[in-house]
Amino acid sequence: MELGPPGGAGPAEPGPRLRGLRGDDRAASAAWLSEASAGRRAPSVAAVLPAGGSGERMGVPTPKQFCPVLERPLISYTLQALERVCWIKDIVVAVTGENMEVMKGIVQRYQHKRISLVEAGVTRHRSIFNGLKALAEDQPNSKLCRPEVVIIHDAVRPFVEEDVLLKVAIAAKEHGAAGAIRPLVSTVISPSADGCLDHSLERTSHRASEMPQAFLFDVIYEAYQQCSDYDLEFGTECLQLALKYCHTKAKLVEGSPDLWKVTYKRDLYAAESIIKERISQQICILMDAKEDEEHVGRCLEEMLKKELNHVKVTSGALCHAGRDLQQIILEQCYNFVCVNVMTSDFEETRKLLNALEESNLSILYPVVVISVHFLDYKLVPFGQKMEHLMQIKEFAKEVKKRNILLCGLLIYYPQIKNKFRYEDAPNSKWNLLALKIICCYSEIQI
Amino acid sequence: MELGPPGGAGPAEPGPRLRGLRGDDRAASAAWLSEASAGRRAPSVAAVLPAGGSGERMGVPTPKQFCPVLERPLISYTLQALERVCWIKDIVVAVTGENMEVMKGIVQRYQHKRISLVEAGVTRHRSIFNGLKALAEDQPNSKLCRPEVVIIHDAVRPFVEEDVLLKVAIAAKEHGAAGAIRPLVSTVISPSADGCLDHSLERTSHRASEMPQAFLFDVIYEAYQQCSDYDLEFGTECLQLALKYCHTKAKLVEGSPDLWKVTYKRDLYAAESIIKERISQQICILMDAKEDEEHVGRCLEEMLKKELNHVKVTSGALCHAGRDLQQIILEQCYNFVCVNVMTSDFEETRKLLNALEESNLSILYPVVVISVHFLDYKLVPFGQKMEHLMQIKEFAKEVKKRNILLCGLLIYYPQIKNKFRYEDAPNSKWNLLALKIICCYSEIQI
Repeated sequence: MELGPPGGAGPAEPGPRLRGLRGDDRAASAAWLSEASAGRRAPSVAAVLPAGGSGERMGVPTPKQFCPVLERPLISYTLQALERVCWIKDIVVAVTGENMEVMKGIVQRYQHKRISLVEAGVTRHRSIFNGLKALAEDQPNSKLCRPEVVIIHDAVRPFVEEDVLLKVAIAAKEHGAAGAIRPLVSTVISPSADGCLDHSLERTSHRASEMPQAFLFDVIYEAYQQCSDYDLEFGTECLQLALKYCHTKAKLVEGSPDLWKVTYKRDLYAAESIIKERISQQICILMDAKEDEEHVGRCLEEMLKKELNHVKVTSGALCHAGRDLQQIILEQCYNFVCVNVMTSDFEETRKLLNALEESNLSILYPVVVISVHFLDYKLVPFGQKMEHLMQIKEFAKEVKKRNILLCGLLIYYPQIKNKFRYEDAPNSKWNLLALKIICCYSEIQI
Repeated sequence: MELGPPGGAGPAEPGPRLRGLRGDDRAASAAWLSEASAGRRAPSVAAVLPAGGSGERMGVPTPKQFCPVLERPLISYTLQALERVCWIKDIVVAVTGENMEVMKGIVQRYQHKRISLVEAGVTRHRSIFNGLKALAEDQPNSKLCRPEVVIIHDAVRPFVEEDVLLKVAIAAKEHGAAGAIRPLVSTVISPSADGCLDHSLERTSHRASEMPQAFLFDVIYEAYQQCSDYDLEFGTECLQLALKYCHTKAKLVEGSPDLWKVTYKRDLYAAESIIKERISQQICILMDAKEDEEHVGRCLEEMLKKELNHVKVTSGALCHAGRDLQQIILEQCYNFVCVNVMTSDFEETRKLLNALEESNLSILYPVVVISVHFLDYKLVPFGQKMEHLMQIKEFAKEVKKRNILLCGLLIYYPQIKNKFRYEDAPNSKWNLLALKIICCYSEIQI
């Protein structure tokens, strides 16, 4: 059951790629990628995601992989993390029959690519086995090919980076099996039958086995075919199956803290905060680029840079057939301040909203737009201001459906002069404006 | 070095106490507590908190126990969790010399009671040993007494509940040692020298050893006195010391997920979200209780109840010498909507702010106050409204220093009639008002 064309890339992910690759890793990565891109001797790689769990530890009725994080199901973030890695050809997701339609809906709505769905088994191992079978079959009508290397990952580890995927894939090609590990956070103990301490394990000589793991396809498929019903029913560790049934000793790869598994409700909170932080790294100020108004944007930019230390502040123009804006959208900026200086309607904001809707930027993450309006309250009657307020509320309701969070800001002061410079009045009007914008910016982040 | 009088209780904690005690536990707890309160044969209990860690896994320069969560250091939440347990007589905290003044400042600012500070050692075990020595000494000038049972807890596990403290204390009295355990989240493996998998452990027959742990004081003190420098330097598990040096097999107590240790930056995010959720459980609507205005509050209450499903909405009056309000503050409500119906100044809001400041409610958690004002814009000129806006901003700046987050809401509609009823216009003005308040309520939560 393939969904979407193979090989296409979904909307891109903010943040660095290949983060943390250095020295040998970088060389190996370069070799691997050049093979992959040259199309010769490229080791074909697929991924299997068991996603049939019920999430009982979460304490909520929804299985944790389907729990919403910023209104998008957790599993969609994990798919996004895998599909942005161009050398993973196919991603096979095992979901229970009852969640099959939900999963199809997720793939469609968030435009995930290279995804195939198979039915999950009643245990984790059975789900993985089903995923492997789908890759092994090489049926005429199937777009799936038997890969050389298969990555196994959890649906509930959304922050996996390309570097660790690459490391386990390379190590699997060499050793037959590989898995990410982390230091233990707590001491591990063994209880006796009467519920007392029997012994505790040396913490330094043990590790937590995490995901992703990778295998030569033939090794892990053989292991699953050989293994006992008991293993399929009660086992949890794929590395152990490769060891037991194929005598393949997995290479262990130190992973980063990002690999952690969303297990409890608090992990959902943490995931949401991490994602919010990622999409709040950049704010862009936009306005009509008529020459005599450019200073307003630059002043605002300067002010916001001062106030928002950890945020990259850029500015751009809405003219030139929107080329600046296209560039900014390509950079995955999710926060915009749109300044409507001279106009009393929402012309600039409309332009921005149109461009955003065309870009599909808001499919994966909410986009924040603050529409700033300068109105001289001595000249414009109050009723007109109220109308403005109402207009933007209507706009906001409309674009909210497309994941764009619009917020209006009316600045009740005599109109900002053209070429008003930041140095002219560092502590007066500009401060007020910038502080108001900072307020909105932090409050609107859901 | 004792700080503050022994036996006093700090500001109380929101949320349930003795949550989850049932059957045998409850009986044991009742017996324990009645002994404690009767003062006879009461097993004296103290707690030791090692807090000398450098927090290297957090990736931030501040040791994790001092990282701010809603602007308050993490360790203060842990102290609060321990000091609300009346049968813990003394709490000994081991901090490094360089953080001693910071720690004293925290104890003073958040009014923690029954706290003694000792200097931490260079390892966790040495810090705990220093804490135990302080309890053992029985010096004439020391207010500390050698306890019968000592609880050892981590400074970075702020969500410990009284029930698990009680369970380990009771089990320690019976078995000599006891510790909280949790199921393993990941499989534990043992690597070989060449960085490959040697073997993986059966997940079901192992547990993660968590905190709190408790010991008969004589057992654990003896163990620390006997143990080797190697243990003090490289060991991490107190239960293991009791086993190795005193042949005391610790009783293992199943703990709740709340026991988790704040280890990584994501855990700080999670902690913050959990605390925000806890202090957002209740919202209280307050107004002047003149009889003919009471309906306004009741309508608002009804509306908010409909919109905020998971929040307890109550209402009260500001008259009767503030008795209603005192009761509400005692219930640990941190969110207030203050309705100023007839007055055009901030009389009601001022009353509330005064009462809040007298109550010390905002010492531990931020208190949110939304000051609602009805103004008929057809009658009141715009300039006057602006003045109102400015007044509340000044107020807000002032009370922010005392951890009260004040937000003004001007409703620009013809004045609400007395005895206006919710049923009269369920979809008109009241909806608008309630929705605006919900907006503020969710946005102002920092």
